[in-house]
Amino acid sequence: MSLSIDSSSQVLENGYGHVELLSGCNDEHEGVIVNMEKPMDSKVFLTALRASLSLWRKQGKRGVWIKLPIGLANLIETAVKEGFCYHHAEPDYLMLVQWISEPPSTIPANATHRVVIGAIVMNDKRELLVVQEKSGKLKGTGIWKIPTGQVDPGEDIFKAAVREVKEETNIDTEFLEILGFRQCHKTFFEKSDLFFLCMMRPLSFDVQKQESEIEAAKWMPFEEYTAQPIVQKPGFYKCITDVCLAKVEGDYIGFSPRHVKSSFTDQLSYFYLNKQDSNSS
Amino acid sequence: MSLSIDSSSQVLENGYGHVELLSGCNDEHEGVIVNMEKPMDSKVFLTALRASLSLWRKQGKRGVWIKLPIGLANLIETAVKEGFCYHHAEPDYLMLVQWISEPPSTIPANATHRVVIGAIVMNDKRELLVVQEKSGKLKGTGIWKIPTGQVDPGEDIFKAAVREVKEETNIDTEFLEILGFRQCHKTFFEKSDLFFLCMMRPLSFDVQKQESEIEAAKWMPFEEYTAQPIVQKPGFYKCITDVCLAKVEGDYIGFSPRHVKSSFTDQLSYFYLNKQDSNSS
Repeated sequence: MSLSIDSSSQVLENGYGHVELLSGCNDEHEGVIVNMEKPMDSKVFLTALRASLSLWRKQGKRGVWIKLPIGLANLIETAVKEGFCYHHAEPDYLMLVQWISEPPSTIPANATHRVVIGAIVMNDKRELLVVQEKSGKLKGTGIWKIPTGQVDPGEDIFKAAVREVKEETNIDTEFLEILGFRQCHKTFFEKSDLFFLCMMRPLSFDVQKQESEIEAAKWMPFEEYTAQPIVQKPGFYKCITDVCLAKVEGDYIGFSPRHVKSSFTDQLSYFYLNKQDSNSS
Repeated sequence: MSLSIDSSSQVLENGYGHVELLSGCNDEHEGVIVNMEKPMDSKVFLTALRASLSLWRKQGKRGVWIKLPIGLANLIETAVKEGFCYHHAEPDYLMLVQWISEPPSTIPANATHRVVIGAIVMNDKRELLVVQEKSGKLKGTGIWKIPTGQVDPGEDIFKAAVREVKEETNIDTEFLEILGFRQCHKTFFEKSDLFFLCMMRPLSFDVQKQESEIEAAKWMPFEEYTAQPIVQKPGFYKCITDVCLAKVEGDYIGFSPRHVKSSFTDQLSYFYLNKQDSNSS
């Protein structure tokens, strides 16, 4: 993955003799992305990094990204000493970045939000699908809540709602609408949560709880659910049941997903909007 | 930040003689969070880490978190060799985690989404506030677009919309509604984007473009904007103008923020919902 430069004058100019440079690909913002893959001694890395930074500065590059797999953790300290900061990390790699041009840096921020769904599943008998969780702040409180769960990386929100309900209760559902969403800060270290409240239609009715995370799961009369003190008092739980009631008894309209193509590529995604109104306009 | 154990039998049992343990605080999921602050030699860290892991296993702990400031990058390789993976990183620290209990691990996923706003600002003359950007995929294309920008860490979506419009064009606005949102995957390495389309009312009218990021900014007749080929062809840009038209000419209702308190703490956040319908129900 490394390229040696064939212009010896450029090498000498840099003052490093014949050195290997780090191989990078360009991004669309005058940046360089270096994807380190093979093991490397930290001293060899230091020499290559210094020579490469010198070259990239001359080329007018602005942001330099270095992706280090966890197996190359030995190189992190070297990169940091040469001015790199962390940008983001996943279980198996760390992404470092350095702005090498004039300020201000336009390095984009890291992912800031986790996305969570809550699923309202009501049957024809006006019973709500509810669970008690084995861990977390509600553990041991006896409080019944709607199924909730985190959207997986790369997963569509409405699909996550169907998956989570199935996993926690074994109930098959059809996604109907997003009734609303809440943005909440500092829920997980410095990160924020976006909680999407999803209205679902049950397609099966035999509840079987998930052993690993769920203490209990059942259909509960809606009025019994709302009678719980935590749902009665003003706050987020009450908001959820208010919106649920508005949907069930009123003409509340949420957002529904529509397949939409990027204006620039063939990439497909979902645009959630008030379909009823936009169709009628 | 380190605690030595006073029960010598426990120390001997662990087979490490008298060693310093890493100091951690408990979380609500039978986990331990170690917040490393002071510089430490990697060999001292290794001994303390091994002894601490042994103790935490005996105590029935499940997840162990280690937060390493960037100045302690020298300890990363040691932690990785002892079985830790990366969880997330910010510019100045890396969070590592290890599940030390029976599988399955219930370690929560990292933040998966960046949150971006797009702002529709229309004046009484049916002119749209538009910009051309200095970098990115639209650079040099001559395409006019609505102001967009990333929501800062800890920032409310509707406030980000007001801030971004002000920064890019110097126009003051009042946030009205979220007209819809798009979830798009793999937009930034492996991360996803949530793009919230915001309807704004202009409170000032003298456009002054931001020098660093904006090539040009102006009020443009809506029909001239929609006549652009990129906006004409089916895709996301066309979706945006369709919804905008439905709002301006029809009775489209989006989501508005309502202040809501957590059901468990005093924390306040915003719940975005179809206010008109939920109020009337």
